[in-house]
This record gives sequence, C-alpha cells and structure tokens, in this order.
Amino acid sequence: MSNLSPTLKLALDLISRSSITPEDAGCQDVMIERLKHIGFHIEPMPFGDVKNFYAKRGTSGPNLCFAGHTDVVPTGPESEWKVPPFAPKIIDGILYGRGAADMKGSLAAMVTAVESFIEANPNHNGQISFLITSDEEGPFVDGTTRVVDALMAREEKVDWCIVGEPSSTHTLGDIIKNGRRGSFSGDLTIYGKQGHVAYPHLAKNPIHLAAPAIAELASTHWDDGNDFFPPTSFQVSNLNAGTGATNVVPGTLKALFNFRFSSELDFDALKSRVTEILDKHQLRYDVEWTYNGLPFLTRPGELVDAIKNAIEATVQITPELSTSGGTSDGRFIAKMGTQVVELGPINATIHQINECVEAESLNQLSAIYERILQNLFT
Amino acid sequence: MSNLSPTLKLALDLISRSSITPEDAGCQDVMIERLKHIGFHIEPMPFGDVKNFYAKRGTSGPNLCFAGHTDVVPTGPESEWKVPPFAPKIIDGILYGRGAADMKGSLAAMVTAVESFIEANPNHNGQISFLITSDEEGPFVDGTTRVVDALMAREEKVDWCIVGEPSSTHTLGDIIKNGRRGSFSGDLTIYGKQGHVAYPHLAKNPIHLAAPAIAELASTHWDDGNDFFPPTSFQVSNLNAGTGATNVVPGTLKALFNFRFSSELDFDALKSRVTEILDKHQLRYDVEWTYNGLPFLTRPGELVDAIKNAIEATVQITPELSTSGGTSDGRFIAKMGTQVVELGPINATIHQINECVEAESLNQLSAIYERILQNLFT
Repeated sequence: MSNLSPTLKLALDLISRSSITPEDAGCQDVMIERLKHIGFHIEPMPFGDVKNFYAKRGTSGPNLCFAGHTDVVPTGPESEWKVPPFAPKIIDGILYGRGAADMKGSLAAMVTAVESFIEANPNHNGQISFLITSDEEGPFVDGTTRVVDALMAREEKVDWCIVGEPSSTHTLGDIIKNGRRGSFSGDLTIYGKQGHVAYPHLAKNPIHLAAPAIAELASTHWDDGNDFFPPTSFQVSNLNAGTGATNVVPGTLKALFNFRFSSELDFDALKSRVTEILDKHQLRYDVEWTYNGLPFLTRPGELVDAIKNAIEATVQITPELSTSGGTSDGRFIAKMGTQVVELGPINATIHQINECVEAESLNQLSAIYERILQNLFT
Repeated sequence: MSNLSPTLKLALDLISRSSITPEDAGCQDVMIERLKHIGFHIEPMPFGDVKNFYAKRGTSGPNLCFAGHTDVVPTGPESEWKVPPFAPKIIDGILYGRGAADMKGSLAAMVTAVESFIEANPNHNGQISFLITSDEEGPFVDGTTRVVDALMAREEKVDWCIVGEPSSTHTLGDIIKNGRRGSFSGDLTIYGKQGHVAYPHLAKNPIHLAAPAIAELASTHWDDGNDFFPPTSFQVSNLNAGTGATNVVPGTLKALFNFRFSSELDFDALKSRVTEILDKHQLRYDVEWTYNGLPFLTRPGELVDAIKNAIEATVQITPELSTSGGTSDGRFIAKMGTQVVELGPINATIHQINECVEAESLNQLSAIYERILQNLFT
C-alpha cells in the first residue's frame, strides 16, 4: 500500500466505502477534507436523503468545475466477485471494486490532479470548483439538478465542466463525450371497449385501433440528427393488452415508449408530433410524459482544445468526440450555459460483476486532469 | 313437489346433482333409467374421465338425435346465490339453480317429450336417439367429439339433431341456431433482437416490426359472410412485449389471436392468408395454431320446418334463424353430415350467479320437442 500513488491510495479509500445509491458512506467527507486543506471553500448542499457539495478555490476568472458522484450501483451477487466489491484490491495491475471505473477512480484522480496543480501554482488564474453528488445512479432528483438550481439562483457562473464519467472505450482518452442526446418517455393508454371475441361488433379492440398508429410512430423520420448527434430515435419498450383469456377483446392497451433526441429537436416539438399522430388515428388515449433531460452539446472550442491537448500530451492519442450512449448529470450542468465534457476511464466493466480499471490508467487520468488545468489556467 | 310436472321434477333432480365439468354426478344414470324403461337401447361411451352415452329406439328410417350435456360451469361464490346452486328451487314461478338454463332444463324436457311421444306412438316411424356428454363446458376433448368419431367409425347415420343449448333470447323459441361460425386461434411469437433503447441500431424492436403486420391483419376484409353468416372476424385478444424496464428494447412480442369464420372459408385458407401477410412484412415468427371447430350450417328444410311449426303451434311465435354467438357441440355432430339445430330455453342468465329459467317454459319446451317428433315421425 505504501508504494501506491496518492491517486490509487485515495481510490482504494473511496471504493472501500459501501456507498450504494443514495448512500455517500463518508466519501464526500474524505474529499472535502483534502480540498479544504488546499484552500477550497466548501458548501455542503444536502437535499432530502442525498449528500452533495460544491467547493471552490479562486474568486475571479473562468470557473472550471470537476463534477462527479460518490454513489455506486448495487453489487449483484457478491460471491461472484473476484474480490469483495467494497474491499478493493489491485491484482496484476488491475484495480477491482464497485466504483473503480464509475466513478471513484475519477474522483480520486480529480482530487490529486488539483492538489498537484495547486502545489505548483498556488496563485493560479481562474476558479476551480467541484460539484459532487451521491445520487447520480438513482432517481437523480435531489442530486446535481438541485445543486445546479441553487447555483443558478445565485447566478454562480460555471464556464467549463469536466464530468468524470467513464467515457473511454478501448484505451484511456480514446473517447470524450461532448454532449448527450435528450431523453423523455411516454406512458400511453389507448382505450377501446371490452367484449367477447364472438361478438366483435359489440367491442372495440384497442390492439386493432393502436396498431396503425404504433406502426406510423415506429416508421416516422423525426430528424436527420446533425454533425454531433445521430438522428432522433423512438422506441416502444413495453406493450401490453389483454386479460390472458383468449376469448376476450381487451378494453385497453398500454405502451411505454422512449425518445432519445438530438439537439435539433426539443421535448415540446416531439410531444406535439406524437399527439398529432395519435389524433390522426382518432384514438381515445392518455399519455403520461416523463421528461428525463435536454440534449446538450459542447462544440469544439477552448475547453475541448485544452482536453484534447492534455490527452495527446499525456497518453499520445487523439480523442474522438462522441455524443452517443445514455444520459449523465452533464445534462443538468449544461443548463447553466456551461460547456460540459465527460472524460474518464474505460467503461467496459461498469455496472457489472468485477468492475475494474487498470491501476496505472488512474495515475494517467490524474495527469491529464492536471494538464487541462495547466492549459486553461497558467 | 307432487304438483309439479314430470319435466320440472326431472329438472330439479338433475340440477340437484353437482356435476361441474367434467363430473356427471349421476345425471346420466337417471336419464338412462328413464330411457331404458321406454325401450331405448343404451350404449355407455366413457372416454377418459368423461361420461357419455348414446341411446336409440327404432331400427329404420331417419334418425332424430337429441343432444346435450350433463356438466355445468362452476358456481362462482355460492353465498351470492339466492338458493344454493345445487339445491334448486322454484320461487315465484322461476326455477333457480346451476344448469337450469344450460342445460339440464332442456335434458329434462327432452326425456319427458320422448316419454310422452312414445306413450302415444309406441310404433313411431324413424329412429329416436340421445347423445349425451359430461364435457361440453370443459376441454371438449373426450366428449361429443369422441362419441361422434365412434359413431362415424361404425357408419351410424344421424340425419337430424336437436341440441338443447339455450338458444332463446327474450321468449322461448324466439331464436333457433341453425349453424355456428368456425373458430381457431393462433399463438404468434415475433422475434426481434433485445438491446438498450439508447443504442437502437444494435437492437431490432419486435413491437416496431410487428405493428404494421398487426395493423394489416386487423384491417383485412376476409370475406363477406353469406345469407347465414356475418363476415369472418379476426381479433387479437392478447399482445405482450417488454421486460417492464423502460430502457430495454424487448427481444420478442407475443400475440394471441382468434378467428370466427363463416362457411365461406376454411382453416387452411385463413391460415395461409395470415402466413402470407406475416411473410410479406418479412417477420421472423412462429405460430402455434389451435383449431376449435369447423363452421356448420343447416339450411332451411325438413328439420327446420318441423321445428318452426312446432314452435308456432306451441307458443305462437315464429323463430328467427341465427348463426351468431359462441361454439357448441353442434359443430362436432355436423361432421356426420347431420342437420343440426339448437333449440333451448332463454340464455340470459347462463354461466352467471342465480342462473334461472321460467319454470313453465320447460313444460313448453317439452311440448315443442314432442311436437317436433310428431311432425317428423307420425
């Protein structure tokens, strides 16, 4: 243990804390202690059961925020793990433990990067901040989104943000995410009239009524996407109608659907196009809409350049920009007008049994984060 | 009790026997005893757990068969009944009890009609037979269909058949069923490829693939029906896809559908039209077909005329011919080339709590059955 780098020591400490969503299990206290020590002003911002904090060093100039979460997903059957998921261990250069890649490794790398940068540049330009939550893997109601609301209410400016989500796929730094699609869901009920299959004229079959509308929704071309986003996609994830009985025409049909949408469209536009199609088919229906997040996009510019350069200088590869994949807290932070980029370790094992990351990659990640600070603030 | 007609006495006796499908509870023995006494030759024809018998009087001339079932559907919560369902009682002229209408009342009326006819016409023309099962309400595997197979194997000829199913709707004899639509079901599985809604290009959504095919099946015009049958109808009774999770594209979709078809079409023709539509939409699928029965149709002629006349003479109304509603054992009997007509009491309360029938209507039904015998055999 004593031979380990500060980044790996901190990663092991954080991973050993069983912080399954929305638990923080003391991780934030560990981070806060370290940040206080190097001159950060700390603001705990708990909401409900969720621990969050915002920390900042510096008072003027652009604000670069490191964002992330201390909570992790459940472990699955612990007996299937190579090491107990909250007793992390480095075996043959690989660090195993729940959160190794998503994203306690990144949190450790952020803290040690900032420590090292400040030691060398105690009077750096700009402002460095941290926005840390313990509810990214859960319902994300009382986490980053609430902190962002509070920061916006007091007009706190966050110019740039690096989210430590595991963006890399094959080798550290090969992919950075400069945006994410937007997402929303609909819970659709289509009403017919129940009856006996032998007397179809007395019933209205909601399956028959719905099928052409679902076919049209499924075949609709919503947009072309753009340089940064694939075309908007619509998927029905669940469809259910019928009592189980084979001689009964059901009274209702239920469909759950989801949109992943590009920055070319917004929630209201898509909602009204769906409604238009359902109305055109003269359906009697209800939809409950669940809005999961706006798309966000950080176009190439100062932040992206600083990150690209830092990756090239540290690990000698040129990262690819991507907006694919699921959602992250980046979407909430982008609401502040912040340029947001996700950069973290390889995501191959996240949410799985034996989540792991190459130990040396966390040292490299810390070096990349530090060089971004140098690129922007020296 | 002693003031009651022989028909009502026998009906009460039969209803008091708790013969829930496939139980017979001694009903057939009671009928057999009575029929033996008036010169019927009795053949018990049990198959599996199911009791059946065929009985016949006479050796030449056309064979008129009375067909029916001694089994009844379950009672539902007995506490909700006005009288215990197997302790039948006549209250204010209404006979209550499970099976009063479907169809122990008819069985009693058949037996007393034949008794009375034979007393007056011991040397009648033609042959009178009974085909009685205890598995009409159940899986109908070991009941009428097996008896019919056995009769066909020995080339027994059944020219005419009256099934005692409760065909009447508002008043006794207002409707007789001179046919029934055919019925078959399909259990359809459509295969896609499971995946994450965020990566739709890696998945194949079976809901999206299936929707246009189901829309086409639902809007297909299968035939025009004919003078006796409404057009063939297709109904999807159950449709299910999805794991419940909102971010997963399901791997398969399941649909249960049912056809009620006219005598213009047959099972093979419809099956190949369904297959053609599924193939046209380039679906990967399986279908398990369940064939429930051919349509049958008895065109106006000697039997229908004899029945019409008997109803007109007894209750002074002219019955309407109908082929609507569910299936009955008539479809199996029709396989023998038999002209089949269903004639029985009012069906308003069948399969319900407080099943009942006007007591006097059973006496009238017995009189109608007897007059049919007179019309055909004297």
